Amino acid sequence: MKNAIIGQSGGPTAAINATLSGVVRELAKSDKVDTIYGMLNGIEGCMQEKFCNLSKLLFTENDFVRLEKTPSAALGSCRLKLPAETSDKPEDVETYTKLFEILNRYNIGYFFYIGGNDSMDTIRKLSSYGDKIGSDIRFVGIPKTIDNDLACTDHTPGYGSAAKYVAASVAEILCDTAVYKLKAVTVVEIMGRDAGWLTAAAALSKPDLVYLPEVPFSVDEFIEDLREILDRKPNVVVAVSEGIRDKNGRYISESEDNVKTDSFGHKQLSGTGRVLEAIIKEKIGCKARTVEFSILQRCAAHIASAADIEESIKIGSFGARLALEGESGCMATFVRTSTKPYSCTCQKAELNSVANVVRQVPREFINERGNHVTSECIEWIRPLVLGESIPEFENGLPVQFII
Amino acid sequence: MKNAIIGQSGGPTAAINATLSGVVRELAKSDKVDTIYGMLNGIEGCMQEKFCNLSKLLFTENDFVRLEKTPSAALGSCRLKLPAETSDKPEDVETYTKLFEILNRYNIGYFFYIGGNDSMDTIRKLSSYGDKIGSDIRFVGIPKTIDNDLACTDHTPGYGSAAKYVAASVAEILCDTAVYKLKAVTVVEIMGRDAGWLTAAAALSKPDLVYLPEVPFSVDEFIEDLREILDRKPNVVVAVSEGIRDKNGRYISESEDNVKTDSFGHKQLSGTGRVLEAIIKEKIGCKARTVEFSILQRCAAHIASAADIEESIKIGSFGARLALEGESGCMATFVRTSTKPYSCTCQKAELNSVANVVRQVPREFINERGNHVTSECIEWIRPLVLGESIPEFENGLPVQFII
Repeated sequence: MKNAIIGQSGGPTAAINATLSGVVRELAKSDKVDTIYGMLNGIEGCMQEKFCNLSKLLFTENDFVRLEKTPSAALGSCRLKLPAETSDKPEDVETYTKLFEILNRYNIGYFFYIGGNDSMDTIRKLSSYGDKIGSDIRFVGIPKTIDNDLACTDHTPGYGSAAKYVAASVAEILCDTAVYKLKAVTVVEIMGRDAGWLTAAAALSKPDLVYLPEVPFSVDEFIEDLREILDRKPNVVVAVSEGIRDKNGRYISESEDNVKTDSFGHKQLSGTGRVLEAIIKEKIGCKARTVEFSILQRCAAHIASAADIEESIKIGSFGARLALEGESGCMATFVRTSTKPYSCTCQKAELNSVANVVRQVPREFINERGNHVTSECIEWIRPLVLGESIPEFENGLPVQFII
Repeated sequence: MKNAIIGQSGGPTAAINATLSGVVRELAKSDKVDTIYGMLNGIEGCMQEKFCNLSKLLFTENDFVRLEKTPSAALGSCRLKLPAETSDKPEDVETYTKLFEILNRYNIGYFFYIGGNDSMDTIRKLSSYGDKIGSDIRFVGIPKTIDNDLACTDHTPGYGSAAKYVAASVAEILCDTAVYKLKAVTVVEIMGRDAGWLTAAAALSKPDLVYLPEVPFSVDEFIEDLREILDRKPNVVVAVSEGIRDKNGRYISESEDNVKTDSFGHKQLSGTGRVLEAIIKEKIGCKARTVEFSILQRCAAHIASAADIEESIKIGSFGARLALEGESGCMATFVRTSTKPYSCTCQKAELNSVANVVRQVPREFINERGNHVTSECIEWIRPLVLGESIPEFENGLPVQFII
């Protein structure tokens, strides 16, 4: 009998704990697995042997259900980037030697990493290094990201809940902004650095304009679009991705000097909405306001999608089965077999084809003008936001599972 | 038999439609009332005879329930400030003459205005002018404001739902920010220009620090408070009112030159959180981020407080009864008779004592250092956020009552 270990990494979502629960639920049923460890703060905690015993923490059905409805990563996260597994620099080799020494000392046979693009790159490296040294540890990645931008899977766990938050909040903002007769533009800034999936979800509530990073953004056309609508009605609501760029590929937010770079070399954006707000005030002269969903869009478990939470548990269990059946170096995926009626199964993809690829919204899901999405796109997103996963409330507030 | 008319005014809330429903429910039962009109966009629409027939729009029980769970003001709002009713300027006299001519032509016997401080001032003026000319129209104000800052009432309809949104979102932000081990401060900026009631509600979820406008804000003490906490733990969450001021009464946000003034002479603030974020980066040098709840805190009906929605209906019905019983020039109020167990009744207050007074959080509800609220304050707020008023969902999104 071997032990198992699970880690969570990358940005939090409302569904990543549901996937953790799914993995543990499945492993707990298996006679191949003894103790189930959680690594605290991902691979960084793993290197420091910071583990918890999930077999003891998740005991009753109530523990599992509460975990499934708790937002963010219960095990903590990290943004540590492992060195290339092919590197022969002594400090890089030492990183891997130390990691595998720890895993072997804890008698780990099954290693799961739940995360996005960068996390899938981490587990790909571990699996590849494991192959090189002949390790028998099974490495399986399980996707999560609100961005929905991972390759080889129809969609990602966590996207549906963030999409539901975005669409419901835009519906409420439309009610709010409709009350005054004064001309006003509300710009809603939505996460999504390189892919517009989450911004596209705003379209479920029919805002006036929707701009994704997949189509070059023209300030002149934007002002034309606004003027045309303001001629008909006083209140305009615009959903815009934080990552929109001009035709030269320059982020619209870069007109402000507030761009920083994280340890993966990603640009840290903020301010796309504020830049547009200033442009509207200058060029149109009407009232303009920015609403940034900020981290709320990834942690609002109180309005999580029931479809997303159920699928997130399911893909966690499926990932566990992959490892138990001897698979390694792969990621669990969703394959949609039909949209109407919605039907979706779990399969696997090689990590080599997943890591470091960004899956964008296809051009045919965006209208010709590039200022809204098509009804086909809305129909594609719809099944992922269905149903309400209401958390347990105590004294008026949601109750959370804290490790 | 006379007709009745109802208007909504000021900033939207998640509960102002519940109060509208309560007024209509009560009036519809009375044999003193024929048609129930809604004025579109408050007193501004009234002057333009923009009315709808609520007797026809609200027909089935389902209509009422859907309206009660729809955020924002279904009748629209306005920010029009009536001239002083005592003015003898010809254009001011004409405003009142025209208004009363319209009300008489529509055979209005009962006039209701649901709103905050400025709206109570509007209905006070109408009532006072009505007295002067010997009108028999009954004028009753019904409070609403997320700010909870109206005088003569224990609390205001709309506050409980906004408070629940704030507290639940802060609980989720605490989960989200806890995942990384890197030192970071998250500043949550909450509405409340002159009163910190809504920011105080964040305390229900135990953020690290809470700053209200009632106590002068010292940047030096703020940095001291942060350093002390950062010595113990990496992630700090700070709830801060948009309206915090230094010891000279200058808004902290005024260090940026982004202050505008609305037609009531109120300063339009934005950027308190951003100003603090910049100070933290400069003085402490750690990661800092701002989350602004913006208009979401006043329109998030999907997490409205059931206690608030029920009380908002109740105070609407009570206000209707006041007018039917012949009262005028008054506002319906809440009187709390007990906190544990919670018990609250409706009474009335003279509009003269309500209008243009701001009720702040009492000093004894704030700790000595001025960086958190007391447990007594939390106990006072708690009953107002109890219960979940879940709206009807269709295709994954909340359904709204649109006039």
